[in-house]
Amino acid sequence: MSAMDKILCINETDGDLSCQSGARWEQINDTLRDKDIPLFFPLDPGPGATIGGMIGTGCSGTNAVRYGTARAEWFLNITVVLPSGEVIKTRSRARKSAAGFDTTKLFIGAEGTLGIVTEATLRLAPVIPTKVAIAQFPDVEHAVSAVQEILNSPYGPHLQCVELLDDQMMSAINKAGVVDHPYPVKDTLFFKIQGAPEAIKLTSDVVKEITNKHGSDRFEFAADEEAADLWQNRKYALTSSIALVPDARCWTTDVCVPTSRLPQLVYETKQDMAKSGIRSTIVGHVGDGNFHALMLFTNDEELRIVNEAVHRLVHRAIALEGTCTGEHGVGVGKREYLRDELGEGTVELMRTVKRAIDPLNLFNPGKLYPEPSMPSGATSKRTETHKDVRI
Amino acid sequence: MSAMDKILCINETDGDLSCQSGARWEQINDTLRDKDIPLFFPLDPGPGATIGGMIGTGCSGTNAVRYGTARAEWFLNITVVLPSGEVIKTRSRARKSAAGFDTTKLFIGAEGTLGIVTEATLRLAPVIPTKVAIAQFPDVEHAVSAVQEILNSPYGPHLQCVELLDDQMMSAINKAGVVDHPYPVKDTLFFKIQGAPEAIKLTSDVVKEITNKHGSDRFEFAADEEAADLWQNRKYALTSSIALVPDARCWTTDVCVPTSRLPQLVYETKQDMAKSGIRSTIVGHVGDGNFHALMLFTNDEELRIVNEAVHRLVHRAIALEGTCTGEHGVGVGKREYLRDELGEGTVELMRTVKRAIDPLNLFNPGKLYPEPSMPSGATSKRTETHKDVRI
Ligand SMILES: Cc1cc2nc3c(=O)[nH]c(=O)nc-3n(C[C@H](O)[C@H](O)[C@H](O)COP(=O)(O)OP(=O)(O)OC[C@H]3O[C@@H](n4cnc5c(N)ncnc54)[C@H](O)[C@@H]3O)c2cc1C
Ligand SMILES: Cc1cc2nc3c(=O)[nH]c(=O)nc-3n(C[C@H](O)[C@H](O)[C@H](O)COP(=O)(O)OP(=O)(O)OC[C@H]3O[C@@H](n4cnc5c(N)ncnc54)[C@H](O)[C@@H]3O)c2cc1C
Repeated sequence: MSAMDKILCINETDGDLSCQSGARWEQINDTLRDKDIPLFFPLDPGPGATIGGMIGTGCSGTNAVRYGTARAEWFLNITVVLPSGEVIKTRSRARKSAAGFDTTKLFIGAEGTLGIVTEATLRLAPVIPTKVAIAQFPDVEHAVSAVQEILNSPYGPHLQCVELLDDQMMSAINKAGVVDHPYPVKDTLFFKIQGAPEAIKLTSDVVKEITNKHGSDRFEFAADEEAADLWQNRKYALTSSIALVPDARCWTTDVCVPTSRLPQLVYETKQDMAKSGIRSTIVGHVGDGNFHALMLFTNDEELRIVNEAVHRLVHRAIALEGTCTGEHGVGVGKREYLRDELGEGTVELMRTVKRAIDPLNLFNPGKLYPEPSMPSGATSKRTETHKDVRI
Repeated sequence: MSAMDKILCINETDGDLSCQSGARWEQINDTLRDKDIPLFFPLDPGPGATIGGMIGTGCSGTNAVRYGTARAEWFLNITVVLPSGEVIKTRSRARKSAAGFDTTKLFIGAEGTLGIVTEATLRLAPVIPTKVAIAQFPDVEHAVSAVQEILNSPYGPHLQCVELLDDQMMSAINKAGVVDHPYPVKDTLFFKIQGAPEAIKLTSDVVKEITNKHGSDRFEFAADEEAADLWQNRKYALTSSIALVPDARCWTTDVCVPTSRLPQLVYETKQDMAKSGIRSTIVGHVGDGNFHALMLFTNDEELRIVNEAVHRLVHRAIALEGTCTGEHGVGVGKREYLRDELGEGTVELMRTVKRAIDPLNLFNPGKLYPEPSMPSGATSKRTETHKDVRI
C-alpha cells in the first residue's frame, strides 16, 4: 500500500486531515509545517511508518505518555476493504459518535487480518513549544519513581515524552560517536516538556525538584540547537546498539507492565542477561511501563541463548500483570504468549471475530491468532527461527 | 448491575483503579477525594451514571474536550460475561498493549448487546486546579469560531470544558430561580480552564483576547464560591428547561458534527423549531461539535411535531458529515438512521460481529442494530412512540 500515499484533504479549523493509508507520519507533519498550519499528528512510531501500518499494529511512540496510542481517538474514521471485497467507511467525520461500538477499533491492532485500510481521517493536535532536558539516576528504580510522581502531579500533562535509556544505552550512544561530548554512563531520563515558556519554566522546576528528591544528581536542559540531536540519539537507539558489536544483529523485545512493576522487571532482566552473557541495551517509554531490551547476537548459538532469555522475559512480564507486546504487535513470534496473557476465552473471542469477518482466512493467514492446537508459551518448546527476529 | 458497586482496588502510583460495573463515577471521585488521593476519573456523563452504563453507551461528558471519551484509553481492561456464559477479562493492567485488536473496545458502545460487564480497571488522571469563566456572544457562529481558535492554539489543552448554552437556555436558568442575579440572555460559553495558577492566568488572557476578537462583549471569571454553582447550572440544564413549560416533557437530541458545521446546523435547527412552534433550549459540548436541543412537549400532537423536527435535525446532521448520536447511544429510536449515517456495509459488519458473539440474540434483542428489513430513515414513515422518548 506504500504507493498510495496522498494527503487528500486538510480541515484546519476542525483539526483533521484525510489521507491514503500509505502516507507516512513524518510526511504528514512536514506537510503541515510547510503549509504553516500549527497542528500535528502526535503518533510517532519508527521512522518511515505508514498510517496503514500504524493502524495495523495499533502503534504508539515517544509521545504516547501525553497523547495516548493509536487505540485512543486519533483515527476519526477509516476506509477498509473487507475480505468479502466490500469497501466500507467506519464512521463520520464528527469528533465523537455513540452510534454503536466503534468498528474503527476492530482494525486497529488487527495486523491486517480483518481488512486492508485504504484511507483514514486523522485528528490533529496543536503544536506546542517544547524543551528537552535530561536527568541521571543511580538506578532504574529511582528513575521510575520520579516519573510516577511527576505524572501524577498537576504538572504531569506538560510531559510530552519521558524516555528511559539505561547505562548500557548511554555507553552505546557515546561509542557511536554521534555526540559532541560523551554522557556520563548512568541510567538516564530524556524529557520533552511542553507548554508556553512560563509553563515550561514552572514544570521544569517541579521536574528538577522531584528528580532530585529521587536521587538524580543532574538535571539539565539541552540548548535549543542540541535538543533535536538529543532526540535523534534516542530515535536511533537501535543503530547505536547494533554498532556496539561488529556484525551484530538485534532482537528487540517489547514488554509493557504497570509502571510500578517496571523496576523489578528491568532489574531481573538485566541479571538474567548478565548470567546468560547477552550484550544488550535498554530503552523505554517509561511513562507507559513499556521498554525494549535490544539484545545482540552474532551467530545461531547466541541467537538460541537470546531466544530463551526473551521467553523468560515475556513470562516475567505477564506474571507482573503485563503484556508480551506494548506496541510492536504479535505477528508470528508472539502468538504463543496470548493464551497465557489473555486467557483462552479472550483469544477465542478474537478468533470468533476473525472467523466471522474472514471465513476463508484470506487476510494475513498465520498471523496474530494462536492456533487452537498451539501449546501455550508456558509449556511449549520454542521453535522460533531467524524469520521471527526483528532487525 | 447497580448493586454490584464496589471499588475493589486503588493503585495510586500506577494511577489506576478496579471496580465493579455498578460503581458510579461520582462515587469513585468522591472516594478518591476522601482518601486524599489527588487523582480522578475524567468521564463525566449524567448524574448517577454507572461504569457499566458508561461502557454500554461509550459515553463522554463535559470533560471530553480535554480527556476524550469512553472510547479512548480510560478502560484498561474489563471483565465481561459473554452470551455463551463464559467470563473473560479483555486485557492486562499495563497502560498499553499491542496484543491484537482491543477486545475491550468491542463492548464500549455495544449497549449491552455483546456482553455484560461485571468489573473494570480504570485509568485515572491527576487532579488539576481549575477556574470557571463565561463569555457571551452575538450568536452561535461567533462563539464556535472563538472555540476553534482557542482549541487549535498552544493553550487549547488548558481548556478542560467548554459548554455552549444558547439564549433560551440562559433564560431558562434565570427563570428556574437558581441564580442570585440573572444572566444576560445571549448565546454563552461556560469555560473550565485548568492548570497551575500562572498557566490559568496566561490561558485566560488568551481566551479573553480571542473571545473579544470574535465579538464577545463580556468575559468574566466566577468567584471560587460561584464556580461550583455555575457548573451545577450547566449540569441541571435539563431540569431548568423542563421547568419552562408547566407539565412539559422533554425530548433530548444528541447529534454531533465537525465543529465547523455546528453554526449552520444550530441556525437551521432554531429556524425549523421556530417555524414548527417548538419551545426548546440548546446546550452543547461545543468543543466536540455535539449539542442537545431539549425540545418540550405537553401532549401527543406536540410530540408528533417534535418527532418530525428531530427527524429533520438528524438528517441535517448526517448530511453535514455528522452522527445521529454523539454520546447517548442508539437504543431503539435511532436504529433507523444508522444505514444513512454509516452505509449498509458498516451496519452489516456490526451485525456480523453481533451474530458471531451472540448467535441466539440473547442480549438486549431489538437494540442498536437496524433489522435488515427496516427501511432507512431517509424514506421511512416514522413510527416512534412515547417509549423512545428520553425524559
Ligand atoms: C527505529 C524504530 C523505532 C520504532 N519505534 C516505535 C515506537 O516508538 N512505537 C511503536 O509503536 N513502534 C515503533 N516501531 C515499530 C514500527 O514503526 C511500527 O510498528 C509501525 O506501526 C509500523 O508501520 P509500517 O508502515 O512500517 O507497517 P508494516 O510493518 O509494514 O506493517 C505492520 C502491520 O500492519 C499491517 N498493515 C500495513 N499496512 C496496512 C494497511 N494498509 N491495512 C491494514 N493493515 C496494514 C501489516 O500487515 C502488518 O501486520 C519502531 C521501529 C523502528 C525500526
Ligand atoms: C442530566 C443528564 C445529563 C447527561 N449528560 C451526559 C453527557 O454529558 N454525556 C453522556 O455521554 N451522557 C450523558 N447523559 C446520559 C447518561 O448519563 C449516559 O448515557 C450514561 O452512560 C448512562 O449510564 P447508566 O449507568 O445510567 O446506564 P443505563 O442508561 O442504565 O444503560 C446504558 C446502556 O448500557 C447498557 N449497560 C448498562 N450496564 C451495563 C453493564 N454492566 N454491562 C453491559 N452493558 C450495560 C444498558 O443495557 C444500556 O444499553 C446524561 C443524562 C442525564 C439525565
